[in-house]
Amino acid sequence: MDIKSFTLSQLETLADDIRKKILSVVSTNGGHLSSNLGAVELSIAMHHVFNPPSDPFIFDVSHQSYTHKLLSGRWDKFDSLRKFGGISGYTKPSESEYDYFIAGHSSTSISLAVGAAKAIKLKNEDRLPVALIGDGALSAGMAYEALNELGDLKYPCVIILNDNEMSISKPIGAMSKYLSQMMAGPFYQKFKSRINQFLELMPDSAAYMAKRLEEGIRLITPGMFFEELGLEYIGPVNGHNIKDLISAFNVAKNMKKPVIVHVQTIKGKGYEIAEGPQEKWHGVSPFNPQNGISLKKSTQKSATEIFSNLLLELASKYDDIVGVTAAMPSGTGLGALIERFPDRFWDTAIAEQHAVTSMAAMAKEGFKPYIAIYSTFMQRAYDQVIHDCAILNLPVVLCMDRAGIVGEDGETHQGAFDISFLNAVPNFSLVAPRDEAMFRQIMEFSYNFNSPLAIRYPRGNFGLCDEFEPVKIELGKSQILSQNDSDIAFIGYGNAVAKAFKTAEILNINPTIIDLIFIKPLDKDMLLNLAKTHKKWYIFSDSAKRGGVGEILAGFLQENGINGISITSFEYEDKFITHGATNLVEDSLDISVQKIAEKITLENSLKDKKY
Amino acid sequence: MDIKSFTLSQLETLADDIRKKILSVVSTNGGHLSSNLGAVELSIAMHHVFNPPSDPFIFDVSHQSYTHKLLSGRWDKFDSLRKFGGISGYTKPSESEYDYFIAGHSSTSISLAVGAAKAIKLKNEDRLPVALIGDGALSAGMAYEALNELGDLKYPCVIILNDNEMSISKPIGAMSKYLSQMMAGPFYQKFKSRINQFLELMPDSAAYMAKRLEEGIRLITPGMFFEELGLEYIGPVNGHNIKDLISAFNVAKNMKKPVIVHVQTIKGKGYEIAEGPQEKWHGVSPFNPQNGISLKKSTQKSATEIFSNLLLELASKYDDIVGVTAAMPSGTGLGALIERFPDRFWDTAIAEQHAVTSMAAMAKEGFKPYIAIYSTFMQRAYDQVIHDCAILNLPVVLCMDRAGIVGEDGETHQGAFDISFLNAVPNFSLVAPRDEAMFRQIMEFSYNFNSPLAIRYPRGNFGLCDEFEPVKIELGKSQILSQNDSDIAFIGYGNAVAKAFKTAEILNINPTIIDLIFIKPLDKDMLLNLAKTHKKWYIFSDSAKRGGVGEILAGFLQENGINGISITSFEYEDKFITHGATNLVEDSLDISVQKIAEKITLENSLKDKKY
Repeated sequence: MDIKSFTLSQLETLADDIRKKILSVVSTNGGHLSSNLGAVELSIAMHHVFNPPSDPFIFDVSHQSYTHKLLSGRWDKFDSLRKFGGISGYTKPSESEYDYFIAGHSSTSISLAVGAAKAIKLKNEDRLPVALIGDGALSAGMAYEALNELGDLKYPCVIILNDNEMSISKPIGAMSKYLSQMMAGPFYQKFKSRINQFLELMPDSAAYMAKRLEEGIRLITPGMFFEELGLEYIGPVNGHNIKDLISAFNVAKNMKKPVIVHVQTIKGKGYEIAEGPQEKWHGVSPFNPQNGISLKKSTQKSATEIFSNLLLELASKYDDIVGVTAAMPSGTGLGALIERFPDRFWDTAIAEQHAVTSMAAMAKEGFKPYIAIYSTFMQRAYDQVIHDCAILNLPVVLCMDRAGIVGEDGETHQGAFDISFLNAVPNFSLVAPRDEAMFRQIMEFSYNFNSPLAIRYPRGNFGLCDEFEPVKIELGKSQILSQNDSDIAFIGYGNAVAKAFKTAEILNINPTIIDLIFIKPLDKDMLLNLAKTHKKWYIFSDSAKRGGVGEILAGFLQENGINGISITSFEYEDKFITHGATNLVEDSLDISVQKIAEKITLENSLKDKKY
Repeated sequence: MDIKSFTLSQLETLADDIRKKILSVVSTNGGHLSSNLGAVELSIAMHHVFNPPSDPFIFDVSHQSYTHKLLSGRWDKFDSLRKFGGISGYTKPSESEYDYFIAGHSSTSISLAVGAAKAIKLKNEDRLPVALIGDGALSAGMAYEALNELGDLKYPCVIILNDNEMSISKPIGAMSKYLSQMMAGPFYQKFKSRINQFLELMPDSAAYMAKRLEEGIRLITPGMFFEELGLEYIGPVNGHNIKDLISAFNVAKNMKKPVIVHVQTIKGKGYEIAEGPQEKWHGVSPFNPQNGISLKKSTQKSATEIFSNLLLELASKYDDIVGVTAAMPSGTGLGALIERFPDRFWDTAIAEQHAVTSMAAMAKEGFKPYIAIYSTFMQRAYDQVIHDCAILNLPVVLCMDRAGIVGEDGETHQGAFDISFLNAVPNFSLVAPRDEAMFRQIMEFSYNFNSPLAIRYPRGNFGLCDEFEPVKIELGKSQILSQNDSDIAFIGYGNAVAKAFKTAEILNINPTIIDLIFIKPLDKDMLLNLAKTHKKWYIFSDSAKRGGVGEILAGFLQENGINGISITSFEYEDKFITHGATNLVEDSLDISVQKIAEKITLENSLKDKKY
């Protein structure tokens, strides 16, 4: 549709239609609700004033890009949102040329805008990068790094600050407070001109002082933080008034400078139940749009809930336990701890680097920090893990939720690499529970462990429900869950131990089944013994093959001079993994239990020989 | 020494003595000169006012900690600075309880201070974290993340901003400009009080406006940026006037709030040749203190120089080449490019995350970005490499200088992990030149390569000087440098190929010698053939064993069902590696060529049988 020619009332009608569409699809498929409902008018005005795809539209995190998708040729396909093979929940250039970049991690948009602006200048083209970034994303240092260069080099671009006073959870940090103090927008604007009149009446002798005052006054507009960084500022603008938005964007468009347009929106706007800063409406599973009640019926506790409960128990018992999350209190389960022990648990906002390093200092001071950051987001604090935790061998615990395939969120969120990047770090030990009972043991173990430890666990439920009595956790000790004469060993790590069992069930065989428990350090004795009796090792782990469990075991065998073992790993091949229901995604990668069973059958010609 | 009881003139004499000591030791051993000469009075005043080690002294990057070391029991040992087994060039808790934390990477200090402050509050102790951070380090987003939490939660701590208007190279970014505009310190302080008097004279009817003005006025003090973030501000203070420093620190000490003390210093102060913002005096090799002339005589070009020249050639030929460094223009050799092509090459200041992501956008726009960041600092942009470069398969080139052991800088700077953490990232290819001739070929190859590529090369010189004609670089193709009937293959990667040759020389044997050239993708055909004829593989690579070349090859053999090969890797064991001359460090790790030769001799009893 050519919304450039739409009248204001047509645009307003369009906003209504889009809201209905988003509500209908998200209540059916799940997805990001309140962030998208809040950005409807914003996105319409962007499309009305600027010229995508020629003007790069850069959506920070891109969990507010649904309206943009609906306006750029994806209305009909939108029902497939987040489904395997369907429309992604994030911007994705392979899906549409209107999606300039991929984004699922926060706070990259201003850097991308700077890069695009540099390119446009070099090519001498008449295009303008437009970034849309939430106030929450401003808490990440990377955004500040980009503003710092932008304010210096002054490349033309428009940064739309979508200020919904919330980030994903509650507003945190000085910057957030700062933005929320700017509410009285019109007052500031009027005040500014009134002061100018006042200054004109002042006696000449005060001229110098007046000049200084003027500077001072300029600075008390809401934009002072940005103006100090050398950026132009427009705002605040009512983010649900299309007319105001269009007018502000037109001003920004013509400035030929880097400019911040400060827009105030309400999360969930238009769907009353979800309006306002409620974390639970940020990302949702399917729900009844009439009453907002979730349709998801889960009787089993998620790994997140298990972690949250266990840490709560532990923290009640030991008062030297402290912890941190980076803007994911509900996603990581740390919210309950922050509520219960507000002096010992913190949400640093989207600031993984600071979260990790500040906890390193607490460990040095004798506290026991639990750092709850998703596997994929731990990539953002890799240097802090190495440089600030590991070198000094400090007893921090990295609690990595969302390890493995995470389903509908797709490539930016898969927890595929944590084993590979942490295994290389000296002083670290890596452990993973297969179920709740073992998670409990691991948490107890972690408290008394005096070196850095990383625990990984899946999104959603564990595949096992305490079918096996867990051993007491000892550093680097595995557990043999089923011992048989067969030549075949199924070696599992973490949640994938369940897959080993299911595969054996499907195949109707009784291999020896091992739970490694630790991938670092390895259980040397067990593995050396196993190598004597079992020559075919099948590896089950929800992780990348490169640097993953199979490769680590291959390295171990080599280092110990053992030959004659064949290792087949069912970890992820060296590709980024798309979105969709986890079972469908795994099947497409040939690592569903059915596909694994087929592969093993083929390899061993199980039909022909019995063992 | 108990400098708490020293008179001002005693402290000033002490400053002179310390300067002489630093100049004498650094001109002999090499080290950080100008940053340390600039912080002499600052460190003396810190020791005079605060109470280390009870008060945590947190030195950001810690390349300004020499005076602190001299004042905390290390005067006599100081001659061993940066030598193997001697005093570290950075703070190191294992060296002294006065060294609260380790630091060699920038911008961690405020996070550490926040963590320490949280701990102190929980323990209800009377201690005060004191962080010393340079203006350059403020450009990293992590510092801002920490300020953002600190301004919100208001834990007592003192952040000393050592403003030497320079960072490591020239001042970059809006923040740097902002700080440099604050020069007129005394004026601001006087102005502030004059305005207050003025306001008192205003009529009552202007009361509300006056209040607003007051806010405005408060904001035009130099500290406004920090005050907006909720932090108290003192300054600017003359950083070479011990009396002023002591007085400012005493005020800060008693505030019981987070406070920024803004101190202005001159880099290199007291050694005239090095005074001011000259990057070359930041870190130096041994020199003649009389005239400042370097004692280092190197006839061979360093890998950095080779890279710089090659990129300059390439960039002259192809005008779509762009590039970036994160505050290391001279260290990475990008400085020459920035000078020659100021519109195409940038220094983003200490902002690795932003550097990488902004270049990802330029790649998307059709440019060819070269991202010059040391191996150890690439850890700081790991997520940006994955999320912003690799997922979209963008043709960026990571140019990783300082790969392998870096010598005197020690554990925080070793380039040990890049193979491990990049090998896991889909779409990436990893390559390493063994010498200049091959580096040239690789650079040409990189320009035409349409996916992400990472190149690693050593600090200092290559071990080989173009002894072998390089093959034309093809993706994933290795080069057989010496083919023999022997059962033994020496497999080298990058600069360590030289070690393979030297080891063969010492042993006086003729093994087959392979240069892998690429560790990803591997040269499958060559390796499969090699496996048929050579059963003993020895691996030479300057990298961590875990996730390194040996483990990757072990995984490869497993995946291809090949048995009967023994792999012995001479990569780094799973430990952090200390500082000292590289040859001494390698010898202590049993990976000098002599030690490797001994190990191979022992393993093969070379004395008894010939092959």
